[in-house]
Amino acid sequence: MDMVKKARKVPEKILLGPGPTPVESRILRAMAEPTLGHLDRDFISLMDETRDLLRFVFQTKNDLTVAMSGTGSAGMETACVNMIERGDKVIVCAHGVFGTRMQDVAERCGAEVVQVNAPMGKPVDPEDVRKALKVHPDAKLLGIVHAETSTGVLQPLEEIASMVHGAGMFMVVDAVTSLGGMDVPVDRLGLDMVYSGSQKCLACPPGLAPVTVGPKAVEHIKGRKTKVQSWYLDLTMIMRYWGQERFYHHTAPVNMVYGLNEGLRVIAEEGLQERFVRHRKNASALWAGLEALGLELLVEPAYRLPSLTSVKMPEGVDEAAVRRRLMDEYSIEVGSGLGDLKGKIIRIGLMGSGSNRKNIVLFLSALGEILSGEGFRNDVGTALSAALKVLEKE
Amino acid sequence: MDMVKKARKVPEKILLGPGPTPVESRILRAMAEPTLGHLDRDFISLMDETRDLLRFVFQTKNDLTVAMSGTGSAGMETACVNMIERGDKVIVCAHGVFGTRMQDVAERCGAEVVQVNAPMGKPVDPEDVRKALKVHPDAKLLGIVHAETSTGVLQPLEEIASMVHGAGMFMVVDAVTSLGGMDVPVDRLGLDMVYSGSQKCLACPPGLAPVTVGPKAVEHIKGRKTKVQSWYLDLTMIMRYWGQERFYHHTAPVNMVYGLNEGLRVIAEEGLQERFVRHRKNASALWAGLEALGLELLVEPAYRLPSLTSVKMPEGVDEAAVRRRLMDEYSIEVGSGLGDLKGKIIRIGLMGSGSNRKNIVLFLSALGEILSGEGFRNDVGTALSAALKVLEKE
Repeated sequence: MDMVKKARKVPEKILLGPGPTPVESRILRAMAEPTLGHLDRDFISLMDETRDLLRFVFQTKNDLTVAMSGTGSAGMETACVNMIERGDKVIVCAHGVFGTRMQDVAERCGAEVVQVNAPMGKPVDPEDVRKALKVHPDAKLLGIVHAETSTGVLQPLEEIASMVHGAGMFMVVDAVTSLGGMDVPVDRLGLDMVYSGSQKCLACPPGLAPVTVGPKAVEHIKGRKTKVQSWYLDLTMIMRYWGQERFYHHTAPVNMVYGLNEGLRVIAEEGLQERFVRHRKNASALWAGLEALGLELLVEPAYRLPSLTSVKMPEGVDEAAVRRRLMDEYSIEVGSGLGDLKGKIIRIGLMGSGSNRKNIVLFLSALGEILSGEGFRNDVGTALSAALKVLEKE
Repeated sequence: MDMVKKARKVPEKILLGPGPTPVESRILRAMAEPTLGHLDRDFISLMDETRDLLRFVFQTKNDLTVAMSGTGSAGMETACVNMIERGDKVIVCAHGVFGTRMQDVAERCGAEVVQVNAPMGKPVDPEDVRKALKVHPDAKLLGIVHAETSTGVLQPLEEIASMVHGAGMFMVVDAVTSLGGMDVPVDRLGLDMVYSGSQKCLACPPGLAPVTVGPKAVEHIKGRKTKVQSWYLDLTMIMRYWGQERFYHHTAPVNMVYGLNEGLRVIAEEGLQERFVRHRKNASALWAGLEALGLELLVEPAYRLPSLTSVKMPEGVDEAAVRRRLMDEYSIEVGSGLGDLKGKIIRIGLMGSGSNRKNIVLFLSALGEILSGEGFRNDVGTALSAALKVLEKE
């Protein structure tokens, strides 16, 4: 075949979009370790170790803590198909594309979905949740996105978790863009099911969805009247593979687990709190720099994600052209807006090893230089000073 | 954390089980290439190339040919959730664990499943299919496993495909353990949906499920009255990501796609027919050697898979002990029996680069030596001669 005469082209790029994020070479090398059988004893001890490391980043003692064999969206679907039976009423909050997606997934599970929505760029108002809980005391669970990847909004969870539990419901949380980059205190808040993706703040290649399930949710799943509609994501079987029994379910993506294992080791070596502080500090520096460039951030300070920043493009600036030049001239990938924000914002991820001084300085300089070409007033020197001032603060 | 002080243990093993199979180091190295964004133009051209290579191994011109972001079982679920709507009647054949699994998956999609079964170790009888088609002319599709991984049975497809199409139904085929190791003539037989897994004869790490869908099945899916129950596996959206539009659906497992791309290049370099001949010849040599050792094969010659061989363990021999010694003393992995065959057979895979003379000779010698310790009559020299005689035949 002619096509195989051409070498595969995989250039190095700087991934500052909403994910995947830069993957350290030690993690990439781990992916290239020899494939083991999915029931091999050495692979099983690697799974055990990986599960313990996942418990560490989820800050949980949950027995049922696994990496599902799919990307973050498979984590979302895992939560919905296992927790929901046809005809169940559920409350799903949405303040962006991923909350809306969760409403869609829940409906496909046959749920009657009560929506609690907020405009893109704002978090969901706990008062709206309170009202919904009052009107729908028969709902089984509330689903909510912790870190909305489409907007960069951080959704505070504590008050809502307390209300949801007070109403006797389960709390399901999407932590795709938060886990490993900011506090996701699963046990402290008693979150019943939390899922994430390997390619955001965990800084591994995409392909695995870490999931943790609290003991009450496990009982709920075990007590289902009907089979889980997805065989592939059925936790009643998957818990027997990741548990003592090692019951064969499907063939785990062995080399992806090596990568996740190495990525989690990177996090354990750094320390969770240290990692949160680093993400927070670097994001603050980026915000200061963007504002010093004269740009406006989409989200107000109290609700900004340390992992992902949405910045508005000034009137008259073609954001697609800006992104194209960032890629062509600097090999920098950033994200476009999704849904209603398409064409209006760019999304900048500083996650995992990508959250560092070098990337902030390079990105601000590149963006400033490109915008000046677009006739937009700005001063790169001022932006860098503002960013570095934050970084040098104790 | 204490656990990260210990080095990760990933020893080299010889994978002669039902999968995963040995992965060439060039494929492992491809997995370690830098992660690109899932909407990056260089990744998109890699996807295009990978899709063309998949069409080559599927022997199809089908536009909708993709790698689903999950293992082979996700491929099975993809076929069922997309082709079936609640209340549909479908016919699903089973001659082993994977056919039975397809019946389960189809039921979870809300289908009324008509079973056409055969005992483990035999293929499904086309006459039984003919009867089922006659009694159930209102069925929408027939699902069948081409290469039954639990038994090593090859299911002939031609006659059944012709009957199914004659009845105006769709033909869905599980080619998990056949694609890339034997003829899967998708277009010649007009198979409407065929899925596979990356970790069998494609000889890549597990984690992707190649799927190809014929034009009539695409129309059928586009004309659904209800949404696909799985958001994650919904081809109506995934075809927009793999197609011209590049519509964002979920984050593809980028590095897994590198591995698949390299694995498909390996196949294209060897040539499909050459690869089929090699698998067939090496399997024949293994069969001759096993029989010369005095062992009985589960499947009669006409229905044996070139990729996977099931051999009965003699009365009084503890098959678990045999497998343990193969692993402990030779680092060889083989598979146990599943379901009713548990404890009765071992399954030997010769797939991809693992299908070679060295593995046949090593495996027969190791097995012969272990069985002699179990008091079983056998002569390793005779077995090797029988195997080599086949290999040296033109």
